[in-house]
Amino acid sequence: MAIKGVLRPGHISLRVLDLDEALVHYKDRLGLLETDRDDQGRVYLKGWDEQDWFSVVLREADTTGMDFMGFKVDSRETMDELEGKLKAFGCNVERVPANELNHCGERVRFDSPTGHMFELYAEKEVKGTDMGRVNPEPWPDNLKGMQVQRFDHCLLYGDDLDGSIKMFKEVLGFSESEKVMDGELQLASFLTCGMKAHDLALIRHQDKGKLHHASFLLGSWEEVLRAADIIGKHKTSIDIGPTRHGITRGRTIYFFDPSGNRNEVFHGSYDWYPDHEPITWTADELGGAIFYHDQKLNERFLTVVT
Amino acid sequence: MAIKGVLRPGHISLRVLDLDEALVHYKDRLGLLETDRDDQGRVYLKGWDEQDWFSVVLREADTTGMDFMGFKVDSRETMDELEGKLKAFGCNVERVPANELNHCGERVRFDSPTGHMFELYAEKEVKGTDMGRVNPEPWPDNLKGMQVQRFDHCLLYGDDLDGSIKMFKEVLGFSESEKVMDGELQLASFLTCGMKAHDLALIRHQDKGKLHHASFLLGSWEEVLRAADIIGKHKTSIDIGPTRHGITRGRTIYFFDPSGNRNEVFHGSYDWYPDHEPITWTADELGGAIFYHDQKLNERFLTVVT
Amino acid sequence: MAIKGVLRPGHISLRVLDLDEALVHYKDRLGLLETDRDDQGRVYLKGWDEQDWFSVVLREADTTGMDFMGFKVDSRETMDELEGKLKAFGCNVERVPANELNHCGERVRFDSPTGHMFELYAEKEVKGTDMGRVNPEPWPDNLKGMQVQRFDHCLLYGDDLDGSIKMFKEVLGFSESEKVMDGELQLASFLTCGMKAHDLALIRHQDKGKLHHASFLLGSWEEVLRAADIIGKHKTSIDIGPTRHGITRGRTIYFFDPSGNRNEVFHGSYDWYPDHEPITWTADELGGAIFYHDQKLNERFLTVVT
Amino acid sequence: MAIKGVLRPGHISLRVLDLDEALVHYKDRLGLLETDRDDQGRVYLKGWDEQDWFSVVLREADTTGMDFMGFKVDSRETMDELEGKLKAFGCNVERVPANELNHCGERVRFDSPTGHMFELYAEKEVKGTDMGRVNPEPWPDNLKGMQVQRFDHCLLYGDDLDGSIKMFKEVLGFSESEKVMDGELQLASFLTCGMKAHDLALIRHQDKGKLHHASFLLGSWEEVLRAADIIGKHKTSIDIGPTRHGITRGRTIYFFDPSGNRNEVFHGSYDWYPDHEPITWTADELGGAIFYHDQKLNERFLTVVT
Repeated sequence: MAIKGVLRPGHISLRVLDLDEALVHYKDRLGLLETDRDDQGRVYLKGWDEQDWFSVVLREADTTGMDFMGFKVDSRETMDELEGKLKAFGCNVERVPANELNHCGERVRFDSPTGHMFELYAEKEVKGTDMGRVNPEPWPDNLKGMQVQRFDHCLLYGDDLDGSIKMFKEVLGFSESEKVMDGELQLASFLTCGMKAHDLALIRHQDKGKLHHASFLLGSWEEVLRAADIIGKHKTSIDIGPTRHGITRGRTIYFFDPSGNRNEVFHGSYDWYPDHEPITWTADELGGAIFYHDQKLNERFLTVVT
Repeated sequence: MAIKGVLRPGHISLRVLDLDEALVHYKDRLGLLETDRDDQGRVYLKGWDEQDWFSVVLREADTTGMDFMGFKVDSRETMDELEGKLKAFGCNVERVPANELNHCGERVRFDSPTGHMFELYAEKEVKGTDMGRVNPEPWPDNLKGMQVQRFDHCLLYGDDLDGSIKMFKEVLGFSESEKVMDGELQLASFLTCGMKAHDLALIRHQDKGKLHHASFLLGSWEEVLRAADIIGKHKTSIDIGPTRHGITRGRTIYFFDPSGNRNEVFHGSYDWYPDHEPITWTADELGGAIFYHDQKLNERFLTVVT
Repeated sequence: MAIKGVLRPGHISLRVLDLDEALVHYKDRLGLLETDRDDQGRVYLKGWDEQDWFSVVLREADTTGMDFMGFKVDSRETMDELEGKLKAFGCNVERVPANELNHCGERVRFDSPTGHMFELYAEKEVKGTDMGRVNPEPWPDNLKGMQVQRFDHCLLYGDDLDGSIKMFKEVLGFSESEKVMDGELQLASFLTCGMKAHDLALIRHQDKGKLHHASFLLGSWEEVLRAADIIGKHKTSIDIGPTRHGITRGRTIYFFDPSGNRNEVFHGSYDWYPDHEPITWTADELGGAIFYHDQKLNERFLTVVT
Repeated sequence: MAIKGVLRPGHISLRVLDLDEALVHYKDRLGLLETDRDDQGRVYLKGWDEQDWFSVVLREADTTGMDFMGFKVDSRETMDELEGKLKAFGCNVERVPANELNHCGERVRFDSPTGHMFELYAEKEVKGTDMGRVNPEPWPDNLKGMQVQRFDHCLLYGDDLDGSIKMFKEVLGFSESEKVMDGELQLASFLTCGMKAHDLALIRHQDKGKLHHASFLLGSWEEVLRAADIIGKHKTSIDIGPTRHGITRGRTIYFFDPSGNRNEVFHGSYDWYPDHEPITWTADELGGAIFYHDQKLNERFLTVVT
């Protein structure tokens, strides 16, 4: 195995104000597939190209935002080892028993300097895809909406950016693919645990523990158009797009679920390798770094979070 | 010949404040090809897929905007016949001699109720394309920038909308493919002289004789992305896009030349036939009619004209 | 009305050996919509972007091939006038009463020098599309398979090529957009009645009255890929593609319905105008003219017809 | 660092019969950038999105085929460790001194059970890209031809398939993403050292040491069309495509350099993770596994190698 340690973003638990409305959004608009519900009323979803049982958990609540984001690691040994390192780093760490989330093994939950809750887990049941693993078709039939392939990454806002970067790099083995610098002050960090341009992004913000967006992968720039058409057709609240990010080169749309949590659907980036020097964006070029076509930020990007 | 009368938009003459800057924009960014200059200092340009000698004329001046837009007709007989009808309609009509524009035959120039200057002409020399007409390649080499295929249409703003619509339909034989209605009041008209969804668009506005944008054709939605990337790369002033119009279904970007004239590059529409009932947009859906993804207008769309 | 006379290909009647199998093919694979059946057992279909009630008629029979291809004309006067000219040209002409095909007005049926049956009609009921004509969406939901937009054109094989070209040009007002010449001998003709690069194509062949393919329009090169994926997924008999035609620049796939009639799905061409000189392909470049990527014909292209 | 050991395919050395012809092909058609030449007359090339100094080396010779394929490893320690394991596995191993290839550090060269020569190296000078690493553009200007992004992988043919698979998996830490099985007999293996669906593919063949193709990455399905158009325009010898592979889902074209070495340009696949069970293709579905649209192999695929 050439990829070791933390493998990938495995799940996100989102709070929504109205579960039924949220399900219309995440299933009929984004095209996530419902795979289970639990006795707490939580609903489990996955993209059509994901093997594991779920990647999105929706929970009805009085507030919006992210409960936690979970990363799959390569083994229980890795989970145990990283748990120790997280404690040594100063995180509050607890074990969540297997099957607290359906189909998921034991999880190591911990907080971060930016005030977000994260998890590691080594085991999740495989549900597989409709294409199967023997003579598979390239894509399945009967998909809905935007037909997102997978939950891909999050962008999180928080105060102690340097602390969280340090934790992800030094404790969890992430690398920084791109960063935004205002002189010596780092404004943003794009972090990868594998070969994707980013598995997690962090932006400096006055408040702790905020979600900027949860992002889902599309298969082409034409699928980005189709997603935007679906947004228009259903008058979904849109933030911006279709456009391109300078950072990671992604082609993207930002929009909001009915509760106000921001989603992204995107396509296209590059393969990252550990011998690549990080890409640096300077604060004076922040507009183009974020929205390459407009070359300027909209106010919502910096202020609307959940 | 099954298409009769007015064939197509044949040229537009634009005023620019600085010709050299404008040429960088129209040649290196849009990718128009320079085909001639005249002793007035005007520069002639065409798209790579246009047969005739020019479709855009740039003239340096102290003001911006459109001098005139010209339509090619199928014959001198048609030109003579339409000249008479335009006079009868009440237009101020004059003949411009052949070669007043290089390579162009005699023109019939006339004004319109919205205060714009238009022309008809039956003859323009054929320059052809780099692919030729014998065993042609599907596209030429050595193109620059956005690689626009042709000058496609204009959107013009003016006061007596009803008058201009009447002139184009009843005198010049255009048809209305789409229209925007606020109750009984027509706000906009999309007019075709052939099978394109629009060859000319008109919007009701307090002032006479305004240019909203000159539009150029691209070959695919991916070329729309590429055009937007070029806009970002050169920090060209962008208005909006990439996005989709509800009206005509076009995928589009609006941006400005260095003098402030708005350009559009777009791809994709439908074939119109004369037995198609016009599409009607209602004022309450105007946002989606213009910008289908955002479902709302930006202020610039209604107010910035040249 | 600027387009006069013959407007467009309006329908094709195809013979299939097994109607149920054919319907799976044309509805579930191509994505045509069933709009009616008649007491002869014929099934009526249309593409999602066609206004008229039908464009494809399937008839179960013991042989395959095309019964007839119909063109919509702009008025009954045009139909009457063209009927006279066809008789004068020497065609066998007959009137088919209204409603012999459901929803269709009276038709003028005639044969051609290449031995094909054609029809003209001025009236067909409008069924419209799922988007409607008031504040329409850009595309409808719940489409199946390749999601073809419309029946677009046919390629027909026959012996007296010169005679049929003469009839379509001189009697019916078509123009030749492209042609293939072997010295003085014309091998193929691409004919248009409007602004499409072709509404009908004819190729010289030893037998009379053969169908090479019926062609359907797609919206993008990505939809061509998707169509090819569907062909692979269902192991539909494929001829060639995805590839590009040199002639008309179309991006294309050829494949067969379960009875052996060849279909094409394609995207992309150019707008034709009556002042464009025809494009000429020479016989030594016939390979690239037909299949631009391979630059050579496959044997099936020249020999397999129905 | 989360990716450890062997990082990626780093270079291929190809023998060509005429270097000047080959350079027209690899530079003007594929769009590789020349970065150096050495005193042996070898020419060094890279794709526009590659950081390292070269990824393709062309050597004029009397025969065609591959001299060797090199993999970059994460460190000298890894190179030393793998050298020992390769010797223990039974390979003939030698050290090639630094700078025997310009800009490249010391290499460990070894043979494989299928008779191919491979190399490991830990150091190669970084040339970077025209976009740079500070506020980079998403793509550079002034590219030629197909604009391939990088050398991506090889497909090699050889006799002792099981032996080479064992070496890559057990010694070098590769994983098998997909495989083709004829009952118990493995016909093909697709191997990855990171998160790409394949970094190396191997097919069972009677002869040792054969090259099927060297593959280069494109950015979209539209770029695949453009590449095929360039193949047609220059009458480059084409094998098959545009089409889709069932295996890896890639959209692809196979064609030949002027010496007869097969090239592939392709776009699109999936991200592989080490907890994914390999995909299995059965011999009876081999046609669709290789060419998903045609669902059958062409004879050339199995027999033409260099």
